[in-house]
Amino acid sequence: MLRSRWLLPGASLALGAGLGAAVAARRRAEGDAAEGLLGRLPVVPVVAAATGPPALPGSGRAELTKYGLPGLAQLRSRESYVLCYDPRSRSALWVIEQLNRETLSGTSDRAACDFQEDDSVHEYHRATNADYRGSGFDRGHLAAAANHKWSQKAMRDTFYLSNIAPQNPHLNQNAWNNLEKYSRSLARNNKNVYVCTGPLYLPRMEADGKMYVKYQVIGKNNVAVPTHFFKVLILEKESGEIELRSYVMPNSPVDEQIPLERFLVPIESIERASGLLFVPNILKRTSNLKAITAGNKR
Amino acid sequence: MLRSRWLLPGASLALGAGLGAAVAARRRAEGDAAEGLLGRLPVVPVVAAATGPPALPGSGRAELTKYGLPGLAQLRSRESYVLCYDPRSRSALWVIEQLNRETLSGTSDRAACDFQEDDSVHEYHRATNADYRGSGFDRGHLAAAANHKWSQKAMRDTFYLSNIAPQNPHLNQNAWNNLEKYSRSLARNNKNVYVCTGPLYLPRMEADGKMYVKYQVIGKNNVAVPTHFFKVLILEKESGEIELRSYVMPNSPVDEQIPLERFLVPIESIERASGLLFVPNILKRTSNLKAITAGNKR
Repeated sequence: MLRSRWLLPGASLALGAGLGAAVAARRRAEGDAAEGLLGRLPVVPVVAAATGPPALPGSGRAELTKYGLPGLAQLRSRESYVLCYDPRSRSALWVIEQLNRETLSGTSDRAACDFQEDDSVHEYHRATNADYRGSGFDRGHLAAAANHKWSQKAMRDTFYLSNIAPQNPHLNQNAWNNLEKYSRSLARNNKNVYVCTGPLYLPRMEADGKMYVKYQVIGKNNVAVPTHFFKVLILEKESGEIELRSYVMPNSPVDEQIPLERFLVPIESIERASGLLFVPNILKRTSNLKAITAGNKR
Repeated sequence: MLRSRWLLPGASLALGAGLGAAVAARRRAEGDAAEGLLGRLPVVPVVAAATGPPALPGSGRAELTKYGLPGLAQLRSRESYVLCYDPRSRSALWVIEQLNRETLSGTSDRAACDFQEDDSVHEYHRATNADYRGSGFDRGHLAAAANHKWSQKAMRDTFYLSNIAPQNPHLNQNAWNNLEKYSRSLARNNKNVYVCTGPLYLPRMEADGKMYVKYQVIGKNNVAVPTHFFKVLILEKESGEIELRSYVMPNSPVDEQIPLERFLVPIESIERASGLLFVPNILKRTSNLKAITAGNKR
């Protein structure tokens, strides 16, 4: 095993304590999860290690998946959000919440919540509080805690580290916080606001003229630090009209004097960069869609 | 719209021609796909833009997903492989093939195959041949063409750009090619070999002592260039024993004089780095599993 280390000079391919130990640890983790967290929470079971083969429409060769599929979408449905986990980055691909006057009112207390590991995620792919300690990054909520005052459990669910990403502290506590507050003010003045939040890893040109994606990873588990964050707001107005507002902020200090509308971007930009699609689904629900971008305001 | 550009200095968040045009283009693409490629191929439908909400076990709040889920696993089941597409990197997360004496024999001809866009992938997230042109990278097969001589269609299916990743030409034509040949020799001498191949994006330490993931992206569509590739071989022996061999090679020139066994790594390393899981599924099928790593040979 040791001899294989040399092949990855400088690169971090974590080498474990051997397969036997790894398998034993995994079985313990799965057992604990089934008896513990998964038994209590309304959580979609981990499908990454699902028993194969699933039904594959059009496949004449089910034999292909005899030993299973090594990874599929890892959905989590919780009191306050639905989330798709990205086991490679140790965080979420996207998180959806529904905000309205009811979800915003209540007496739930943030002080009663602690950031906690998400035991429903395999230990190989899970962020821990230790990963964040001393990293210089905040544990930034994707679905915001203050959006879910209606239920202490809903608020507590936002503290799972699967709903968290490493976020620049200044951003988290200022401009991004303002965007979250603005989402809530829209929810108070409309029928519903659906909020989808997630990380972006955007390329930039370097001195050699080529484009590179570069991002830090923190802690023993290599939790990915996004270069940017997106937030897509789908407003249901009392009139029945649907309004779309999509924002991107860099994961760095942002002057909170800059008006939020300056961070509006065309939804297409987020769809291209994130690998996600929003508009096709919305158009299945309504033909009364209005997209607000900074351009609309001119 | 223009005013929002400034917020991403140096970063590439592709700004399109506005939402209206984008939506129209998307509708055309979806229409074409349904009548064209998707109508003819045994392809799992694109689920990223699936009509929401799906059944979410344990969710008391289906209302949350009223406007759909922005992204889910994008499986493709083809003649020669099952693949999970990664719309963010414009390539696959993993590809599984089954090799045995039958799949290796036949007269299918590589010269009759052309690299082709995968029209079943949304145009925002699809690699094109133009992305590779002049990039300095080969269009490297994940499921190898020469593994599927049994059927011209199976071979042709390996030429979809969803089964391709940007690969260093020297690696593609030498050491990686040798690993593919070795997989075939194992398939000739065993009952079956299941091969799972995919990209890795491994972090490395930089001068500031912090860990970073950094990779190039090529072409207009920002196709991600993996830092490494993995190949996991699951051997079914005539005796019934299952043997596991897992390899990692860097996406750079590799001296082909180096024995392939030096590139063996513990499966756990690949599982941690890729966000995938192999062993739990295999253990559901057999208790007779032997893992071969370089360490076994000492």
